[in-house]
Amino acid sequence: MTDKEEKDQISRIQAGDVRTASRLIRNLEDCVPEARSSLKRIFPLTGRAHIIGITGSPGAGKSTLVDALISAFRKREKTVGVLAVDPTSPFTGGAILGDRIRMQRHAEDPDVFVRSLATRGALGGLSKAVGDAVHVLDVMGKEIIMVETVGTGQQEVEIVNHSHTVLVVLVPGMGDEIQAIKAGILEIADIFVINKADRDGAGQLASELSTMLCMVNKFPGDWQPPIIQIGNVFEPATFAESVGKLADTIDEHQRHLVEKDLLGDRMRRKAMVEINEALRDAILEPVLKKLTESGEMEAIADRLLRRETDPYTLAEEIAHRFLK
Amino acid sequence: MTDKEEKDQISRIQAGDVRTASRLIRNLEDCVPEARSSLKRIFPLTGRAHIIGITGSPGAGKSTLVDALISAFRKREKTVGVLAVDPTSPFTGGAILGDRIRMQRHAEDPDVFVRSLATRGALGGLSKAVGDAVHVLDVMGKEIIMVETVGTGQQEVEIVNHSHTVLVVLVPGMGDEIQAIKAGILEIADIFVINKADRDGAGQLASELSTMLCMVNKFPGDWQPPIIQIGNVFEPATFAESVGKLADTIDEHQRHLVEKDLLGDRMRRKAMVEINEALRDAILEPVLKKLTESGEMEAIADRLLRRETDPYTLAEEIAHRFLK
Repeated sequence: MTDKEEKDQISRIQAGDVRTASRLIRNLEDCVPEARSSLKRIFPLTGRAHIIGITGSPGAGKSTLVDALISAFRKREKTVGVLAVDPTSPFTGGAILGDRIRMQRHAEDPDVFVRSLATRGALGGLSKAVGDAVHVLDVMGKEIIMVETVGTGQQEVEIVNHSHTVLVVLVPGMGDEIQAIKAGILEIADIFVINKADRDGAGQLASELSTMLCMVNKFPGDWQPPIIQIGNVFEPATFAESVGKLADTIDEHQRHLVEKDLLGDRMRRKAMVEINEALRDAILEPVLKKLTESGEMEAIADRLLRRETDPYTLAEEIAHRFLK
Repeated sequence: MTDKEEKDQISRIQAGDVRTASRLIRNLEDCVPEARSSLKRIFPLTGRAHIIGITGSPGAGKSTLVDALISAFRKREKTVGVLAVDPTSPFTGGAILGDRIRMQRHAEDPDVFVRSLATRGALGGLSKAVGDAVHVLDVMGKEIIMVETVGTGQQEVEIVNHSHTVLVVLVPGMGDEIQAIKAGILEIADIFVINKADRDGAGQLASELSTMLCMVNKFPGDWQPPIIQIGNVFEPATFAESVGKLADTIDEHQRHLVEKDLLGDRMRRKAMVEINEALRDAILEPVLKKLTESGEMEAIADRLLRRETDPYTLAEEIAHRFLK
């Protein structure tokens, strides 16, 4: 791609061109080298969007909620981008794709851009793909970017690293919510959402959660995570009202971050994650490439299989050869 | 730790000492440097265990199955190690811990060793922790090592990398099994297990699965994954019989790997993963440490926050400085 073509590409993305943005995101996922070059150019243009991470267990109704939040933010005249992270889990893939389809009712709205990201099984690949795609949506001018992910292990940590406001979506009747919360979720949630709040147990879940929050002496930045209950989707008036309240609470959290000068901390954390990921690509990848291309990797595997040496001693020897 | 102390430690592990093995596994999880040194010594002693990966969606009854398989292998006079991978997901943590407790009925048996591994949120940390712990159980002399993990995204890939035989546990009535299977699980399963096979839909699930397997022209190593149905745990005779059949099928797969000379391929794949992980520790970690200790990392974050440069250009500059 020539310099001019690259400039044109970026102008088109800034103008909100969906095809150009989609192609760049896909190329970034596929690690196409010229996409990396585009990313370098767009990085200085980023940092304006408010990024909302949405996590919760499978079946908690996150996609329906995201869909409703799109409408709520559009009513508030905000432009919206959504990244739906599809873990390529064979077990949940089908259901998630089904949910995605519902979001297509915003397909005609030029100020809404929805994109699914697949994780390709590469270690750390998801976090990098999300970070890169968030930058593209940011440059497109999306004021609100929602990153939706299934809450399982590593991904909670990653979503926090990329978000300014984290929603944790719970649903009554899953049985283990409260132990769950004890296990550390208080640390990541900025706002708790109780979805399907018309179900039995919603009140109890909210009050147990509230009791637990009361036991925390000090919240970072003095923000005590509010608990928002979302009504039944089949009762449109109640549902829309509760989603509107959630959107207001998100706005409030955003203002809180700005007023208390906390946004900087979150953006710094994000910057640290990004430089770490970029360093892995820049330092580790060339070494692996050289070892593979020279055939040394095969020889290494042979030696390990014969138990002539161990991976840790070998890795130290290789580090000694490659590092200054 | 002196050389003698380290030798003693390894002798105790070889003698099956649970406390010494547990301490080493914990120190490996915590990245204690002397644990790394022990790992170098034990590596040449490893490679004898048959490693079984067990994955499936949450609620598929994996822990109950593992518990029953322990009994089945003990009846066959095999020593057994189990690594139960607890994703530190706040959403599932509670339930998994509950399941774990059931396995404690083997606590009195010196030839059974069960250990939970927590994922600490570090990228790639899980795979490394599993690999390290498998080595310790191997040196303890466990002939069968079962690694149980919740099937979500990256973890399937990781479990395959560490296993000789992969069981994929399905359960009727989860709705999306068949799409799930299409999404790529055929590639990782050596044996399909239909758990809770007394439930409605078990027959249909088995027949759909079987139809799909028929459409695959060629299986790697000519092993067509068998489908084993496991009966209701509350009907002990049927249940034990079906679990016995599963244990036999695992033995059969192990013999198949040996006879067709396929075990080498799997062990090579495992070796490649291990060297990759060791290289990340040996090459990337020292660079990050130097940048952090010199305070440069903070300066980098500042420059990124001011959008003076981008992470990718910066990472290339750093790579140039540190790589020969």
